[in-house]
Amino acid sequence: MLENYTQQYRDALLNDVLPFWLKNSPDREFGGYFTCLDREGKVFDTDKFIWLQARQVWTFAMMHNRVEARADWLDMAEHGADFLLKHGRAADGSWYFSTTRRGKPLVQPYNIFSDCFAAMAFGQLSRATQNAEYADLAKTTFDNILARRHNPKGAWNKAVPGTRPLKNFALPMILCNLSLEIEHLLDKSLVEETIAECLHEVMDVFYDAESGMILENVTPDGKLSDSFEGRLLNPGHAIEAMWFVMDLAVRRNDPVLIERAVKITLDTLEYGWDKAFGGIYYFLDRKGAPPQQLEWNQKLWWVHIETLIALLKGYKLTGNEDCWHWFEKVHQYTWSHFADPEKGEWYGYLDRRGEVLLPLKGGKWKGCFHVPRGLYQCWQTLEKIRA
Amino acid sequence: MLENYTQQYRDALLNDVLPFWLKNSPDREFGGYFTCLDREGKVFDTDKFIWLQARQVWTFAMMHNRVEARADWLDMAEHGADFLLKHGRAADGSWYFSTTRRGKPLVQPYNIFSDCFAAMAFGQLSRATQNAEYADLAKTTFDNILARRHNPKGAWNKAVPGTRPLKNFALPMILCNLSLEIEHLLDKSLVEETIAECLHEVMDVFYDAESGMILENVTPDGKLSDSFEGRLLNPGHAIEAMWFVMDLAVRRNDPVLIERAVKITLDTLEYGWDKAFGGIYYFLDRKGAPPQQLEWNQKLWWVHIETLIALLKGYKLTGNEDCWHWFEKVHQYTWSHFADPEKGEWYGYLDRRGEVLLPLKGGKWKGCFHVPRGLYQCWQTLEKIRA
Repeated sequence: MLENYTQQYRDALLNDVLPFWLKNSPDREFGGYFTCLDREGKVFDTDKFIWLQARQVWTFAMMHNRVEARADWLDMAEHGADFLLKHGRAADGSWYFSTTRRGKPLVQPYNIFSDCFAAMAFGQLSRATQNAEYADLAKTTFDNILARRHNPKGAWNKAVPGTRPLKNFALPMILCNLSLEIEHLLDKSLVEETIAECLHEVMDVFYDAESGMILENVTPDGKLSDSFEGRLLNPGHAIEAMWFVMDLAVRRNDPVLIERAVKITLDTLEYGWDKAFGGIYYFLDRKGAPPQQLEWNQKLWWVHIETLIALLKGYKLTGNEDCWHWFEKVHQYTWSHFADPEKGEWYGYLDRRGEVLLPLKGGKWKGCFHVPRGLYQCWQTLEKIRA
Repeated sequence: MLENYTQQYRDALLNDVLPFWLKNSPDREFGGYFTCLDREGKVFDTDKFIWLQARQVWTFAMMHNRVEARADWLDMAEHGADFLLKHGRAADGSWYFSTTRRGKPLVQPYNIFSDCFAAMAFGQLSRATQNAEYADLAKTTFDNILARRHNPKGAWNKAVPGTRPLKNFALPMILCNLSLEIEHLLDKSLVEETIAECLHEVMDVFYDAESGMILENVTPDGKLSDSFEGRLLNPGHAIEAMWFVMDLAVRRNDPVLIERAVKITLDTLEYGWDKAFGGIYYFLDRKGAPPQQLEWNQKLWWVHIETLIALLKGYKLTGNEDCWHWFEKVHQYTWSHFADPEKGEWYGYLDRRGEVLLPLKGGKWKGCFHVPRGLYQCWQTLEKIRA
């Protein structure tokens, strides 16, 4: 049983998903990757989204660093890195949101996650190549992110300052992940400080003891806000954070923290699971009010693969049987709904009933990242459970 | 048959929809209207969205001006106008997107439609009251809109200038509608110029002869753009525009223009109708690629009521039987899916299958506007058809 699962995750990664991107995504004429790929892998839009360019660089560099030093993987990572170096940055060093196929800047650097994934990409690639330019770029970008962190949208922030200040859950999570990614380029004390701050933010500030849920947005002093943003829950996002926390807890040798992360994973899953049709909701409102997101009840690929990672890590670390039972249930839903054995890779967007909403394998927000990272993480964790 | 329809639209307007908003929406403590109302009409969020505040002022002022000079309707309009006067504007006279319940500005004036609906609101209210302050405000706001029209998002525009300039279909349509709304405050020549320009933009520039569809975005010189924005179709938006065009064609006594608007209405409806589950899709891509909007296959209230108006006007003006057949089909879908005879008013958001997606009667984008305006327009047109 365990052996079948292990093989399924490894085979899908090595024989299906990575080959799909190797074959369909490189733009051999203008560099970088196409990410808007239809069911068959054919390109339906040629814009280059910096988030997704950087995430694909990271994925292939990570595979090269951690699984096997394959030349085709490193070439694919460097192919994207070249495009990012040539076209990705504005004059102030921040990263555009998107460019045209040829690399002309299209959408301004309003989104700090472009910078976060660029830093991750060049961090991984600097490990693979020892290229000092990549290392410098990762480090400089990280410093810029720290400088922008308290107003990440900058001039494009539409909130009137002071009326309802809120802080968002995504940034502390990603900063923590990022500081580990480029640990080899940072002072040890900065890494440890960032981890400690992230754990405090996630587990004390964004965790709401009353509901037992992680909130997407809280006031600057960590209070609830009774507004659309302040009531928002994103179960997949909370569960993804919990496997980051489990990894950090292992690093810090903190079994109490592991137990808390496992409990939040299971509680969030119980709350976010669609009892009628299966799958995990995309957004919920903690007071049960209608969310403003019209896509709230859709089932998204990344939510499900991130949940599989958290459940396997939770099971590996604690032996909690609930993790295993939930793993089998979410595995069953995920593979029978998202995977497309006939044409390869995974669908990204299903409606509430689990029917395909958009017949694409990649788009403006789905690239070569969550599926391969998740398959890799599940494969590795299953290997450790077997050992 | 015609009499039953006429009565249904009139009764719903006068005995269901307007009473729902009169009863549930006024904020007697801090002014303005609540628009986030659940199925029963109970408030689930207290933010004030300037679009929706202004649209409700317009609706009650319009009813007072065109149907009956009822004091409760005028009071309701002035109740919202007071809030807008006190809290709606930034220092430069542009209109905020939203405020808190107490009127503290929350989201910046990034959205020119706040200004458009504010001008409409004060234009209608100035007709009802002869209040010069209202008239001045409508006129000043209109002038500001004209000054901002070529970069309506201003500093909040995230597009890099020059790379892929696009113009959007909404603004010419709304400017034309607005110039008629405040015709009594404008030079006759400006009104006629605006109408001529709008008709040219809609029927020549945004109309794509190859597909027979109205596009949401084109290049500044009216060409197709092969991008997410440039491929986007919004059938409800195009059909809404067609009844504006029919009204203008009547004003200009132009039967050829009427025929064109009727044909585009029918072609768009044929294209946008969901043959499997009924109802009109929210968004489509003219090349059949996956749209970026995850809500693309949902069924929205305003799309359906605007289509009913266009079909009745088309039938009244041309006697085209296709308009009548489609009217009966869309009427049947609309009343059996959106209306909520048990609790009043209409649901706004259905999934593809026509099941309620959000159990609300009002929210961040749905207020007291499309349903009452549509019921009024259908009622009036049915009266004329009967006559």
